[in-house]
This record gives sequence, structure tokens and C-alpha cells, in this order.
Amino acid sequence: MRNFVSAADVADIDSIVQSALAYKADPLKDRTLGANKRVGMLFLNPSMRTRLSTQIAAQNLGAEAIVFNVDKEGWALEFEEEAIMSGNTVEHVKDAAPIMGRYFDILCIRTFPSLKNKEDDYSELYINQFIKYSGIPVVSLESATLHPLQSLTDIVTIQEVWKEKRKPKIVLSWAPHVKALPQCVANSFSQWVNAWGKADFVITHPEDYELDTKFTKGATITHNQDEALKDADFVYVKNWSTYADYGKIYTNDPEWMLTNEKMKATNGAKVMHCLPVRRNVELSDEILDGPSSIVTQEASNRVWAAQAVLGDLLR
Amino acid sequence: MRNFVSAADVADIDSIVQSALAYKADPLKDRTLGANKRVGMLFLNPSMRTRLSTQIAAQNLGAEAIVFNVDKEGWALEFEEEAIMSGNTVEHVKDAAPIMGRYFDILCIRTFPSLKNKEDDYSELYINQFIKYSGIPVVSLESATLHPLQSLTDIVTIQEVWKEKRKPKIVLSWAPHVKALPQCVANSFSQWVNAWGKADFVITHPEDYELDTKFTKGATITHNQDEALKDADFVYVKNWSTYADYGKIYTNDPEWMLTNEKMKATNGAKVMHCLPVRRNVELSDEILDGPSSIVTQEASNRVWAAQAVLGDLLR
Amino acid sequence: MRNFVSAADVADIDSIVQSALAYKADPLKDRTLGANKRVGMLFLNPSMRTRLSTQIAAQNLGAEAIVFNVDKEGWALEFEEEAIMSGNTVEHVKDAAPIMGRYFDILCIRTFPSLKNKEDDYSELYINQFIKYSGIPVVSLESATLHPLQSLTDIVTIQEVWKEKRKPKIVLSWAPHVKALPQCVANSFSQWVNAWGKADFVITHPEDYELDTKFTKGATITHNQDEALKDADFVYVKNWSTYADYGKIYTNDPEWMLTNEKMKATNGAKVMHCLPVRRNVELSDEILDGPSSIVTQEASNRVWAAQAVLGDLLR
Repeated sequence: MRNFVSAADVADIDSIVQSALAYKADPLKDRTLGANKRVGMLFLNPSMRTRLSTQIAAQNLGAEAIVFNVDKEGWALEFEEEAIMSGNTVEHVKDAAPIMGRYFDILCIRTFPSLKNKEDDYSELYINQFIKYSGIPVVSLESATLHPLQSLTDIVTIQEVWKEKRKPKIVLSWAPHVKALPQCVANSFSQWVNAWGKADFVITHPEDYELDTKFTKGATITHNQDEALKDADFVYVKNWSTYADYGKIYTNDPEWMLTNEKMKATNGAKVMHCLPVRRNVELSDEILDGPSSIVTQEASNRVWAAQAVLGDLLR
Repeated sequence: MRNFVSAADVADIDSIVQSALAYKADPLKDRTLGANKRVGMLFLNPSMRTRLSTQIAAQNLGAEAIVFNVDKEGWALEFEEEAIMSGNTVEHVKDAAPIMGRYFDILCIRTFPSLKNKEDDYSELYINQFIKYSGIPVVSLESATLHPLQSLTDIVTIQEVWKEKRKPKIVLSWAPHVKALPQCVANSFSQWVNAWGKADFVITHPEDYELDTKFTKGATITHNQDEALKDADFVYVKNWSTYADYGKIYTNDPEWMLTNEKMKATNGAKVMHCLPVRRNVELSDEILDGPSSIVTQEASNRVWAAQAVLGDLLR
Repeated sequence: MRNFVSAADVADIDSIVQSALAYKADPLKDRTLGANKRVGMLFLNPSMRTRLSTQIAAQNLGAEAIVFNVDKEGWALEFEEEAIMSGNTVEHVKDAAPIMGRYFDILCIRTFPSLKNKEDDYSELYINQFIKYSGIPVVSLESATLHPLQSLTDIVTIQEVWKEKRKPKIVLSWAPHVKALPQCVANSFSQWVNAWGKADFVITHPEDYELDTKFTKGATITHNQDEALKDADFVYVKNWSTYADYGKIYTNDPEWMLTNEKMKATNGAKVMHCLPVRRNVELSDEILDGPSSIVTQEASNRVWAAQAVLGDLLR
């Protein structure tokens, strides 16, 4: 594995899932793998679970992690080629990234989309420029359109929970939110579940909330949530803003919020969410505090997913 | 000790004071106690001494400390049960805390009071929610109404300095300030000196600055500063805003600022302050730069107090 | 060496340059030198390379580095003696610095000039107050008027690149910028090249951009850039604001931006810049992306310069 920014970077999803579970069973088994190695963690946007779990994963591997909040502790970066930098950006990624490549052995980066210009966001300019110019392995801590560490965690968690021989039915269910959110988690979950190939995968959302087919191809897509939930084994709840007419909120219909009542149609499904979650907007207290929620288990698995990725890159 | 958020959490103050002094004598004596243990340090508010000393204490014990500025590097947390999160809070403590409980072995938290709603602040909702939902030991790095690491340090410092057999006379003396400050340090110092029980304890402040009697009960309280200072062995200087009519500044009378002239009435008292201090507002240069001040010794003892607490929780 | 805030602190520049190159050849050769030592890194202003390289240097030496963003994670410090602190500053350096001196073995500090009051800035009040009151070695991570870690790196890089027996011709060439910048890097580079004494040193800038002669004395100064560049072996490009009529921008003449065309007059010179650089304002893409630029090598040498300094102070 050269970089970790998409499911496409992983040759064998089953194998990396097993690696994560092995780290969960024995967190310190590769305690010296990262000796004298340095993991740079650059944040252009806020983060909680991703930041903490990746830092812990690096420590478990014996590597030194250095966190740098580029936006707060540093300054604004420029990403456009041939920019005349007479505006607000202070340093070009062409100058910053090669230096990160000398300072670190692995570079982890979080960036967010603008949600204003679809083409720009979907070109993944920011993370691609870091890949192009740093010369070292780059790990996405969530980029403009994908969140692979989250999705690997999600597959790890499903694998851990699912004990039956048949394929589970997994439903990605859109939820209301008060803000226009990126499509990253939904794109990425779709991409990974499809690439994994070990589930019946259904995506349900209101009209006009279609995701990029590049990621969803292979899934069944329906606007009928009740139908989608029928016999579901896992319900992955997530809001996203519109993709086609980019970055908009078309509806906030509270009917789309998952309830215990709606859960009756499922096969005793487990409920997942990447967090943070707006309680009683995206997902009700009754679900989150009830027995079907596995969000804490899911979030705690972030460490093992990150450790599997860093471990692979350090090897 | 399960948590460390109040003097009430400590079974034996003398014993933890001795533990702190033992760490001062030999900082690295428990260098392996924290091996493969992780201390999370969450800041919802700024901090300098508390942050640095706790981080150093964790390192001295061989533990890995991870600092996370929730407010700046993350997002606003919700603490109210059953909140409908359609406003500015992004994540509920019910979701965040259990994950911290999985990521860390000990959770240290700094929060501040609003100074607007007394009942809310004095319920200690924030830190109590972390205790309730994290499932691991919680250490207060200052909460809405108390600052126990500071107070433990203060007792350690008094113990270290005081060589006579008789009980010292300790005076907590209110001081002017330009801002409305929390009652935390004054509450906490009162609580700890009373619980320690090895001093004659006098609190002096202007009318209407009475603290919560829950903390001060046992102390002599007077509005006459000169009388209070008479024969004092330690003068602990601190501003606080009003408690009864909550969070107000009733007076800024500069007469309440301690001076060398006023110190003449004392028994060559040592002057303490938790810092930061507004020079020549709360406390004069002549005191802070003179021989009676022990504020640097006091602040440097923060490391050993934190180490005693973390050491106990790691044991 | 007691502190590292100026070339004047270094007894033998050649020796510390050799030490840096030795660390580059074998980064972990003094892996235990910093065992149980703690390096405090205080930032009153943003930083990227300096922060990361110093943190890495401390780790390479086995020391524990603690980063503290005083401005963001703490509060505003007061530096004036006898200040009546009824304004916005929360803590006096007289109180903060001695505590840093107890918490750390070495104190690294970044401060910036106001660019409003020349006398204040050139008195280096901030860093001098830390030296005066901390009682431990202080390392400048860039101060109001100097940037010695950068300049040491620059000499290290020149030494590394230059293989001929004759003295190289080094040109410090002013460049346009959109903001009024400190004179630190230019002052410091001048001071170090002069103190090093192994180069023919020419400074070129527009009229009225003269630097403080305290630093430039010994260099040839000309307003004719073409003349300066003639036969140059190294061109150090940097913007600074005016010194005499303090902190102003008199010109932004794009003619001063270095181009390949201008480089023809040089002796195949290598181009240096401390970074961050405003591309196509200070320095053109064609230079930065071309074979004459050694800015990445220069920036990566920051680690070894910092390691040489910390190593010396820890010894």
C-alpha cells in the first residue's frame, strides 16, 4: 500500500480488516515497528475521534506522532498551481509538502470540501497535492469526498458483530441535519461496502440526494426508507448534502430520523453512525441509548483501523 | 480513589500530600507505573500551569498524555439530557465521553462556569456528565466550582514551608480584579483547608462576597481584612465574583490589595496565589517580588500534586 | 553556550555547523543525551518549520518536548516592568517565566515584533524578559529582530553545498511582498554570515530599505540588484519592511523578483529562502521549481541546526 486515501488503495480489504482485529486483540504486538519513525498529522479542519485514534495507533506502534493544526498554529496554504500569491494564502503546498516529506515517514492529513465547487472538491486537489509533492505515504484523515479510516472501521465493526454465514443486509439511511454536510462518509461507506462485496447493500435517501454513482454503483438505491429497512441487519445513519445540485439542503423532513418504531421492520438491526451525531435531529436518544446502537464500539474501533493502516505503511 | 474532582474524593489528605512530596524528592521513582497507560487531557477552557504540570506529571510516571483542546481543535459539546441538537452544539457528552473511556485510562478535564446561572454551575453538570458516561477515572483540571489540583498543591506547599509544631494561621484574603472571576479557587482552598484540619483558617472579603457555606463551614469569616491578617502565617490572595447575587463585581476597592504595610500585622506570613495574577491590581509588585511571596514554589509544586493524583489512580 | 538567541551566543560557528552536519549523518547518535530532560516550546506567534523541526530535534535527542501555544491555549502575557495590569494582559512574564524555569530544562520561545515601535522591538524585551526571569537556557524560535535557528541552518546548508576552496559570493536580495514583514531573517542572516566570515557578502535592496548596521556591518550594500547578482554563488531571497522609517512598505516593485533571466549573471548560483514564500510575488515558480533552488534542502536542515543547539545546551 502506497497511500491510504480510498478503498482503491487497499489490495485486500479482508486482510486489512483482520489486521485491525488482531491489533484489537493485542494492541502492543508491534510495539517496535514504528521505532524511530515519525508520523505527521496535519489538520486543516477540526477532528476528534480521527485525531485521537490515529495518535493512539501511532503510539501503540512505537512511532512518534506530531500533531500540527495547520489552520490554527500555522497559516493558510495555497493549492493551485501557478498561483500568484498576493492574497491570503501564505505558503504553497509545493513548498510545504516536500518538507513534510523530509520531516516525517508518514503524512496524515485532514481537509474538508468547500461544498461550493463540486468539481474542485471532487478533484481532491488538496490531498492529491500532498501526495504529489510530499514523496512519502499519505493517509487521509478525511478528505473532500472520502473518509477511508472511518469506512475501514465500519467494515471492521460489521465483521466483528456479524456471526451468521449469510451475507448481512446493510442499509445506508440518510438522516436530517441542520447544516449542509459533506458527502464524504456516505461516499466512502458506499465505496468500501461495494469493494468488500460481502453484503446486500441498500442506500435510501430522499429524492435528489443521489450520491456520485462512482461510489454507489452496485448498491440498490431507493427513496422508500421503510422498504429499505425491511430485514436490515445493519443500519448506517448519516446525513449528507445534495451532490447533483451541489452542497444544498433540500429537505429536513424529520420523518427520515430513525426511531424504534421504524426499527421494527428490521432484522433486529444494529445501528451505526460515524459521530458526531446531532441527537434528536439525525438520530433519536431512544436509538442511541438503546440496545441496537453500536456507535461506541464503532468509534473505539477507530484505533485498530488506524493501527492496521499505519502498521501496513510502516512495514 | 475513583475520581479526583473534590477534597471529598480523597480518603486521607496527609497521605496524598506526603506522596506529592515524595515525588518532588524523586520525580522518576515510579517511572514505569504508567507504562502503556494513556492519560487524556481535555480542555474546554484555556490553561497554562495545570496543563503543563499535569502533562509533565504523566510523563514522569511513564504514561502517554494526549492533550486535546475540545473548544479549538474539536467542536462544542452538548451536556443537557434529551437535548434536541438543532443549535450550535455538535456532539453530546453521552456520545463523546464513552469513547474517551475507550481511548484513555484516565480522563482529565478543564471546564469553566458560565457565571450566569448559579444552579447550573454549582450542579457541576459538565464534569459530572463526563464521570457518568466515560466509565474511567476523571481528574478535574478545574471545574465550574472547584480546582482540587490547585488546592492539593496549596496544602503541599504549606506543609513544605511550615516547620513549627503549632497550627499555622491561614488567611484567605479577597483581592480586587478587573473581571468577574469564578469562585473555584476560593471554594476549593476553603474545602481543602477545612478537610485537612491542621490550621486556624480565616476568610476575609468585602460584604456580599460570602462564598458557599458548603465549602467555608469551619472557617472564621470577617469583612475586616486588617483583623484577619493579624498574626497570619500564610495569606492566600484571590479574587472571586459574588456568589449570592451570582457572578457580579460589587466592588473593586483597591484598599483590599495586599501591601507590605498591611503585611506588618502578620507573623512574617508567606503570600500565596494560584496565578495568573493581575500585578498591581490583585497583588502588588512589592509583595510578589519580595521575600514573603512563595508563588513560584507553589506553582512548581503543581507537578508533584498532579503526579500524586495520577500515581494513585494508576496504581 | 548559555542561551541561543543571536550569533553572539555561539563561540565557534564552524564547530556548531559541524555538529549539525554530524547529526544529519547520524540523527540518533545522541539518543540518550536528553533522557529525562524536558524542552518547553512556547509560541506567541504561528510557526511551522521551526516548530516541527525543533520538536523533532528534541525527540532525536531523547528529550520530551512540550508545545504550548501561549496565545491560543493560554492568555496574553505582560512584559513591561511595573505594569498596572488592569487591561487585557492576564499574566506577567515575571510570574510565568520562573515557573517555566522549574517545569523545563530548556525553554524555546517564538515571539514577533509589533513593527510599530522600533525601539521596543529592537530592545528584544519579550525574549530578554524570559531570559531574565526563567533561569534556564532560552532558545529563540525567532524573536522580534533575529531568527538564529534559521541562520544557523542557512550556514549549514551553504557549507554542505559549497565544495570549492575559494570563498563563495553570497547575495542577500530583497524581494517584494504584499505584507509588511519583520527584518528578523535578513538581520540574522547578515549577522551570521558576517560572524562566520567565510564569504564575500553583498546585500542588495531598494533605496530606504537599509537594515540596522549593527547586523550588516562588513557586507557590501548596493541598490543595484543586477550588479549584486554578478558572479553570485548563493542568492538568499527575502522580503523585509523598512527599518529607518519603521515597518513600512515603500515599494513593491516586481522588478525585484528574482527570475531565471536575472540568474544568468550569477555563477550558477543556488537560491535560498527561509520559507514561507509567496510564489510569483517574492520568488517565481521558475526559480522555485528549477534546479537552482535549494529551499527544500535548506528547510530540511532545520532539524539538524536545532539538534546541534539543543544538543549543546543539554551537554
